[in-house]
Amino acid sequence: MVKVQRIVLDVLKLHSPNGLEFSTQLAEKCPGCWFNFKVMEVDEKTETVIIVVESEDIPYEDVANAITAMSGTIHSIDEVEVISFDDVESVSAATDV
Amino acid sequence: MVKVQRIVLDVLKLHSPNGLEFSTQLAEKCPGCWFNFKVMEVDEKTETVIIVVESEDIPYEDVANAITAMSGTIHSIDEVEVISFDDVESVSAATDV
Amino acid sequence: MVKVQRIVLDVLKLHSPNGLEFSTQLAEKCPGCWFNFKVMEVDEKTETVIIVVESEDIPYEDVANAITAMSGTIHSIDEVEVISFDDVESVSAATDV
Amino acid sequence: MVKVQRIVLDVLKLHSPNGLEFSTQLAEKCPGCWFNFKVMEVDEKTETVIIVVESEDIPYEDVANAITAMSGTIHSIDEVEVISFDDVESVSAATDV
Amino acid sequence: MVKVQRIVLDVLKLHSPNGLEFSTQLAEKCPGCWFNFKVMEVDEKTETVIIVVESEDIPYEDVANAITAMSGTIHSIDEVEVISFDDVESVSAATDV
Amino acid sequence: MVKVQRIVLDVLKLHSPNGLEFSTQLAEKCPGCWFNFKVMEVDEKTETVIIVVESEDIPYEDVANAITAMSGTIHSIDEVEVISFDDVESVSAATDV
Amino acid sequence: MVKVQRIVLDVLKLHSPNGLEFSTQLAEKCPGCWFNFKVMEVDEKTETVIIVVESEDIPYEDVANAITAMSGTIHSIDEVEVISFDDVESVSAATDV
Repeated sequence: MVKVQRIVLDVLKLHSPNGLEFSTQLAEKCPGCWFNFKVMEVDEKTETVIIVVESEDIPYEDVANAITAMSGTIHSIDEVEVISFDDVESVSAATDV
Repeated sequence: MVKVQRIVLDVLKLHSPNGLEFSTQLAEKCPGCWFNFKVMEVDEKTETVIIVVESEDIPYEDVANAITAMSGTIHSIDEVEVISFDDVESVSAATDV
Repeated sequence: MVKVQRIVLDVLKLHSPNGLEFSTQLAEKCPGCWFNFKVMEVDEKTETVIIVVESEDIPYEDVANAITAMSGTIHSIDEVEVISFDDVESVSAATDV
Repeated sequence: MVKVQRIVLDVLKLHSPNGLEFSTQLAEKCPGCWFNFKVMEVDEKTETVIIVVESEDIPYEDVANAITAMSGTIHSIDEVEVISFDDVESVSAATDV
Repeated sequence: MVKVQRIVLDVLKLHSPNGLEFSTQLAEKCPGCWFNFKVMEVDEKTETVIIVVESEDIPYEDVANAITAMSGTIHSIDEVEVISFDDVESVSAATDV
Repeated sequence: MVKVQRIVLDVLKLHSPNGLEFSTQLAEKCPGCWFNFKVMEVDEKTETVIIVVESEDIPYEDVANAITAMSGTIHSIDEVEVISFDDVESVSAATDV
Repeated sequence: MVKVQRIVLDVLKLHSPNGLEFSTQLAEKCPGCWFNFKVMEVDEKTETVIIVVESEDIPYEDVANAITAMSGTIHSIDEVEVISFDDVESVSAATDV
């Protein structure tokens, strides 16, 4: 049972929606996730941002769709952290949670 | 249920009110918030400051209005941290608080 | 209820009183405060020092007056940390202390 | 009784599968492992990534086979951490787990 | 009630007594103090050292006299940390100790 | 009673056995040891690696023999940590373990 | 009551005895001490090493004699840490140990 716990994305977005709205809308689509949004470079019409997502198991499709829906482009997946539970462990871990 | 826990703002302000008054007035408008105010560059009439706000859920409009009311200009939102609670979790978390 | 918890000051002072006397007299005027005094640059008649003050709620006027009384000049307030308690919280916090 | 607890690999891979799919498939083949996948350099058709694997005892063959099965090439094993248990200790450690 | 908790001194001393004897004799004059003595620069007849003193309340006169008695010269007081207790707190703190 | 707790070795080895096999075989010869093996430089036929060994008391001869048996050459012992127990302490420490 | 808790020595030694033997023999002469031995520079016949000694109270003469007995030369004492106990405290501290 594989869970994706952390993803770092390099994203190009328009100035609008701004970083706060962008992050908030992203979070609304991904219950249980924590987001850090950092502006790296600002150009005339766009800005390059690094978005870190952490969760018990990240719903990547939801993250990616939400970014696209706000006219953002995922340039690259810079980092991924996954954990693979043994089957027995994962069952007990699941009931714990 | 999305909560904004940290915002980093790049702000241009006049020398007056000074940093202490500026921070204090900002804090008065945002109960439950912690502010770090740091001067980055001083020019003849203005200064560039980085303001970090942390709270359980930051009332950004109040922060932005308070800055504007003191003749400050938000140049950019440099960083945002948001957390999205699962609905069940957020209810119990809310009653805890 | 707003409390100022940390202030960093850039101060120009004469060589006398020396750093130890300067810090001690400063502290005598501000019960409940912790001070770090660091010499950054020494010139012929003056020295530039960075003074960090931390307290549960810094009495800035007392700090500033004490510096002025020792012929020191506050060049700038480089950093400020303030916390704004919710009213309910601040009452219980006050009775705790 | 020797256990391999950490391996750092320098890997060349094609752009597809992307980092998330690559990491997830890798993890599926190695129950009980934690993976960090980081992109170091991107070229026209390939990318160089650093993969860190941690586990109680890493099944290296499974890791290597999974990488090869996704058309990845292990350029080098950059770092290895192994622990060698005394026989008595390892028995009790084994029953603990 | 003001207590000096840390002082950093820039000191010029002769090669003799050496750093170990210098530090030990300094400590003998200041019960309750901790000293860190670090050589920064060695010249033909002298050496520049940084001496850090920490204590619950540093007896600076004793430190300074002990340095002078060993032909050392205090070039500057580079850093000072003082704490100013509220009167009530300081009484209870005193009885605790 | 002297115990060697950490040794850092600069080793030249052939490409085969690879780092994983090299570390594992090394560990098999030294029960109770932890090894970190890091590749520093790769040449045509050889590679320079830094090997850190930690244990309650490192059997250096076993480590050195194992390295030599795999055609490795110890260029230098870069770092050593040893602890010397008082006799009384070491006896009780020994019975504890 | 003054205790020397840490000394950092800059030492010139011959290649033989090697770092492991050098450290071990040094430790045998100083029960209760911990040593870190690090090679800084290697020349044709000699090497410069930094030796850190830590103990509850370092017997410096024993350390210095052991270094000399192995043809080492102490270039300088780079750092010293001493603590001076109040008489009352030191008595109770002594009985604790």
